[in-house]
Amino acid sequence: MRIIKRVAEMQQYALQLRAAGKTIAVVPTMGYLHAGHMSLLDNARPRADVLVVTVFVNPTQFGPNEDLDKYPRDFGHDCQLCEAHKADIVFAPEADEMYDKNRSTWVVEEELAKPLCGKSRPIHFRGVCTVVSKLFNITQATVAVFGRKDAQQALVIKRMVRDLNMPVEIVVAPLVRDADNVALSSRNRYLSAAERSAAQVLSRELLAAEPLLAVGGVKKALELKAEIAEKIAAAGGKVDYVEVLDTENLGELTPDSKSVLLAVAAWFGATRLIDNVWVDFIR
Amino acid sequence: MRIIKRVAEMQQYALQLRAAGKTIAVVPTMGYLHAGHMSLLDNARPRADVLVVTVFVNPTQFGPNEDLDKYPRDFGHDCQLCEAHKADIVFAPEADEMYDKNRSTWVVEEELAKPLCGKSRPIHFRGVCTVVSKLFNITQATVAVFGRKDAQQALVIKRMVRDLNMPVEIVVAPLVRDADNVALSSRNRYLSAAERSAAQVLSRELLAAEPLLAVGGVKKALELKAEIAEKIAAAGGKVDYVEVLDTENLGELTPDSKSVLLAVAAWFGATRLIDNVWVDFIR
Repeated sequence: MRIIKRVAEMQQYALQLRAAGKTIAVVPTMGYLHAGHMSLLDNARPRADVLVVTVFVNPTQFGPNEDLDKYPRDFGHDCQLCEAHKADIVFAPEADEMYDKNRSTWVVEEELAKPLCGKSRPIHFRGVCTVVSKLFNITQATVAVFGRKDAQQALVIKRMVRDLNMPVEIVVAPLVRDADNVALSSRNRYLSAAERSAAQVLSRELLAAEPLLAVGGVKKALELKAEIAEKIAAAGGKVDYVEVLDTENLGELTPDSKSVLLAVAAWFGATRLIDNVWVDFIR
Repeated sequence: MRIIKRVAEMQQYALQLRAAGKTIAVVPTMGYLHAGHMSLLDNARPRADVLVVTVFVNPTQFGPNEDLDKYPRDFGHDCQLCEAHKADIVFAPEADEMYDKNRSTWVVEEELAKPLCGKSRPIHFRGVCTVVSKLFNITQATVAVFGRKDAQQALVIKRMVRDLNMPVEIVVAPLVRDADNVALSSRNRYLSAAERSAAQVLSRELLAAEPLLAVGGVKKALELKAEIAEKIAAAGGKVDYVEVLDTENLGELTPDSKSVLLAVAAWFGATRLIDNVWVDFIR
């Protein structure tokens, strides 16, 4: 496995691979890798000749009062996991290697990025779209795998790829939960034992809602939305949002909606967690 | 020479070429081609294995009161010229082939796009950056040639390519003038004989200013800026702008500026024309 830190080196190598007819699968990450990420690597591995994992804590997707500075890092362990899961390349640039001081270009998605996390994190998806565009250009991805834990991110990126005709297949892989059903996230390490215990309310409520949503349709979805917010608050979480949206456009559910994204974000202590279920309506 | 109208066909073919190790030069145009465009094709031809000319009147770079509907078109003649100048492919999609009805993604450049044409055409460069990003992805350009007549456009695109790590070399080719020194432009066809005659003031003043700028530095540049605006008005033109800016960032000239873009935009009747000279200061 090769570790590359320089943008020019990564891009030249990727362009050589592509010119030789090779396909390239990319798993973009912010590092501090866990079993959720490993499921993405395992999903991506058979999809291309070469597997690239990017490890980059992207400053432009963090707001001024967010956790950029304390975001956890363990590059040595990340590389061990990537090697064990058969990555060919770990691309891990520094921030000043990725962003010029006088940079002035952004990629913005203006519909799917608006609700949910877009409300409480107004510059987040601009940063995500911009860095993913850059990473696709640098790694020359032919396929990229994202986790459904960040469901809105996956939808925004799919839209961006379609709108800008990026020649990259986007795969959205299943969400992975820990033994206590909490969705795997690098941010879980911030939680105290009591906060971790309280945070279980998210998955408990979402997984209970899943079968009810499938048969209950729009009316049931709106009832559940209110109930789940109450349950999270009762468990000691501070709700950022509980939303039921049409997966097609992240707009409001309509009688024509085919499937629903039930998505939640809530604070447990100083830590903001997200979770979701994605359910097809049964007619 | 092959004419392609479909995005998917163009992109699949381009990806095949790239996977076989071929390089691709692209000249993006809005059609109604003239000798200025042909100088770009001739410049691009030796730079790559395959030469693609795109012909697309991009609606997203026109403001609501601009000349999208009357923009001149002559696709048959365009194809003749492209064939004569050894293009391999003309890519000419319809607007609904390029833009999905519910598109929501833009590429924006927020520094170089602000002054000059960005002031009077506030959405113009957002449309340019977005369509050029799309065309690069669709045609898999390895090199692209733009004309210096649209100097700001060339600078914005170079910045975008750098900021997003697009693997495309940007070449800025010389401005081409007609026999009467008017800069070649598809929009010149809108001009009456009297307007055409009046419009000669632009090149007359710019070309006269060029040697004075080279030795005169910042002070002379600011004097010339005022004088040229007066001369254009005296000739019957309505000045949109006359600006002298640092070519590095399109900011104000400073004692450290190495070169100056003297750029003008003015209306002659209902037609808005642009012209410029780009001058290195001699120290």
